[in-house]
Amino acid sequence: MAVIVQKYGGTSVGSVERIKIVAQHIKDTKEKGNKVIAIVSAMSGETDRLINISKELSSAPSEREMDLLLSSGERVSSALVAIRLNSIGTKAIAMTGRQCGIVTDSVHTKARIRTINVDELKKHLDNDEVIIVAGFQGISETNGDVTTLGRGGSDTTAVAIAAAVKADVCEIYTDVDGIYTADPRVVKNAKKLDKISYCEMMELASLGAKVLQIRSVEFGMKYNVPIMVVSSFTFNPGTLVTKEDENMEKILVSGVAHDKNQVRLKISNVKDSPGMASKIFNTIAKNNINVDVIVQNVSNENNTTDISFTVTKEDADKAYNLLQNLAKEVKSGDVSINKDIAKVSIVGVGMRAHPGVASTMFEALAKEGINIRAISTSEIKVSCIIDEKYTELAVRALHDAFGLGE
Amino acid sequence: MAVIVQKYGGTSVGSVERIKIVAQHIKDTKEKGNKVIAIVSAMSGETDRLINISKELSSAPSEREMDLLLSSGERVSSALVAIRLNSIGTKAIAMTGRQCGIVTDSVHTKARIRTINVDELKKHLDNDEVIIVAGFQGISETNGDVTTLGRGGSDTTAVAIAAAVKADVCEIYTDVDGIYTADPRVVKNAKKLDKISYCEMMELASLGAKVLQIRSVEFGMKYNVPIMVVSSFTFNPGTLVTKEDENMEKILVSGVAHDKNQVRLKISNVKDSPGMASKIFNTIAKNNINVDVIVQNVSNENNTTDISFTVTKEDADKAYNLLQNLAKEVKSGDVSINKDIAKVSIVGVGMRAHPGVASTMFEALAKEGINIRAISTSEIKVSCIIDEKYTELAVRALHDAFGLGE
Repeated sequence: MAVIVQKYGGTSVGSVERIKIVAQHIKDTKEKGNKVIAIVSAMSGETDRLINISKELSSAPSEREMDLLLSSGERVSSALVAIRLNSIGTKAIAMTGRQCGIVTDSVHTKARIRTINVDELKKHLDNDEVIIVAGFQGISETNGDVTTLGRGGSDTTAVAIAAAVKADVCEIYTDVDGIYTADPRVVKNAKKLDKISYCEMMELASLGAKVLQIRSVEFGMKYNVPIMVVSSFTFNPGTLVTKEDENMEKILVSGVAHDKNQVRLKISNVKDSPGMASKIFNTIAKNNINVDVIVQNVSNENNTTDISFTVTKEDADKAYNLLQNLAKEVKSGDVSINKDIAKVSIVGVGMRAHPGVASTMFEALAKEGINIRAISTSEIKVSCIIDEKYTELAVRALHDAFGLGE
Repeated sequence: MAVIVQKYGGTSVGSVERIKIVAQHIKDTKEKGNKVIAIVSAMSGETDRLINISKELSSAPSEREMDLLLSSGERVSSALVAIRLNSIGTKAIAMTGRQCGIVTDSVHTKARIRTINVDELKKHLDNDEVIIVAGFQGISETNGDVTTLGRGGSDTTAVAIAAAVKADVCEIYTDVDGIYTADPRVVKNAKKLDKISYCEMMELASLGAKVLQIRSVEFGMKYNVPIMVVSSFTFNPGTLVTKEDENMEKILVSGVAHDKNQVRLKISNVKDSPGMASKIFNTIAKNNINVDVIVQNVSNENNTTDISFTVTKEDADKAYNLLQNLAKEVKSGDVSINKDIAKVSIVGVGMRAHPGVASTMFEALAKEGINIRAISTSEIKVSCIIDEKYTELAVRALHDAFGLGE
């Protein structure tokens, strides 16, 4: 008897009709002889609706209360799916993050899971019940406050629970039917990948492929939980995210990602002395802002340097304010912000064994007259910051250059 | 420094604009030097919206899941009001039923509060914070499941918390400006009462005055918490529900109530032997259905009797099914149901000392040609079951007969 964890995103449970279809699919999975835990997101539109109301009440809503507010959407979905299952004859029980033992740190709106106590989950599985879990939430280890795991947190909930109960597979049902070599809305001949490694998926997720949240892939890799991305509209087999294998290494580049949700910040004329960069990035990190591509220029003549980096658009204003205070403190030059940038990246475990991939990328961009404003590389990806207006052009050029549509 | 508990109903927090007004009123109360705990209901329409979705998914939604579903509305309101208060400079914290220590029994959808652990509440009050509590909910003492207190449960939450923290007053903000001698929509010259006793209010609430939930008044009486009904639209002083005093006793009848939410069930030809009635009503009670007016006829010639009683419309189908099973079991006659009835009542502590009040009532109804189908009396009220179509006529006739509009 296999233990299957399923996760249904907002569009998958976005209406009464969709909830009926999802409940039926859960029932079918159960009746094939599996134990099933399903994690659900808020009905599509609900989270945005609540955020909009909160914005009408406050320009900077308190994060503790935002968590209480937003966690309600997932609770509603879990109750509704369980209600439906019970009415079609499948014993089901809805559980909140707290009830399934998810304890997090106390960083509101971006909490990280610390522990999962699986006693209650196991009790109900042993009792032959299907469990419907409200995704995206837990309670804080310090005081039991409701916390949320950030956007895409239901994926994290699903994979973390799959790891905790040692599930055979974690199926992520979503409104796409798998991971593609590029965004199909941008690249007409983008192809669906049958299989991809955890490492590649992490790069693609963080780079904006938007299918799986990066932390959920981290969890999957750490605990070796195979993650299957499936369309909740067709229920066709999608893309399996799993351990790296030999076949994957034969492919140079697996996909091209792009991310327009980036803003570039620059602090100029920083004194080029030890500890300066760490002072800046410590302050940013302490405020729970993730920094992406960092570029530090070579020293100017007057022994100062310019430091620039990118953050997401959500964090841009907060980071900008922090940087302005820092600039005063360390007596540096101006702080500037550029919101019209984007990041394009190529990803593939195969590039480890093949030098020259980066130069093929730069060449392809140059051929289209696209200026590269910053570069960041890892073992299995190369990212370039470019002007936002060239994003689609760049993605198509790279997809062609590496023959991904063939 | 007074401790003031306030409760805001669904229409009081029914829109962004209403939430702003409520937050401002809480802030004002705080700045007059009071400690404030505010209990909020779901935004108006939200609970019904969720109920309607659940009905589309199941004809008999599981009650445990309904509690999880419906409790979300109050959580949303509490977060939004706290967010607003923080943004206008008043330190506020939103708390769920669980977080303010409300533990209930395990009767889903109609749970009763067992205990309130006020440690957290006191901590935040001492910390000079305003506390915004999600009303209507707690967690079950047996397993920590979310429970709800039934319709009007936010009133119960408010009065129970007021009792637990020994508040000076519990203010119930609602869309009416007080308790009237009759429903002003029915009786044009109905008058607002400045003061009413707990006992009278309990009779009026249970009889359908709809302003305060009966259990909240019970709590108020038990712990001697003065309850002030206030309009959240005008903020004018409304009606104070408090201990009985001499002046109240001078008035014969304080108000006329009516309740159309009643259904009459009848089980005929029940064997007239000891234990028969208790068997029937035990079964009904075990299913958490409240029975109101009970009438048992004198024995028929064949030593059987008819037993009839009223329940609320919500419980009607459940009670009818139970009764049909019982009828088979005890080999009685048919079970019938009449949904076209209503209850009209006169209430007043003064009637204890004045006989003849009931006959004035029957006379007034007879004069209008209204047939009385059942009668139920207590020390301070007389209720008559009549055909539903006569309800308004009856209420006006009784209001006049006791000179309440003068």
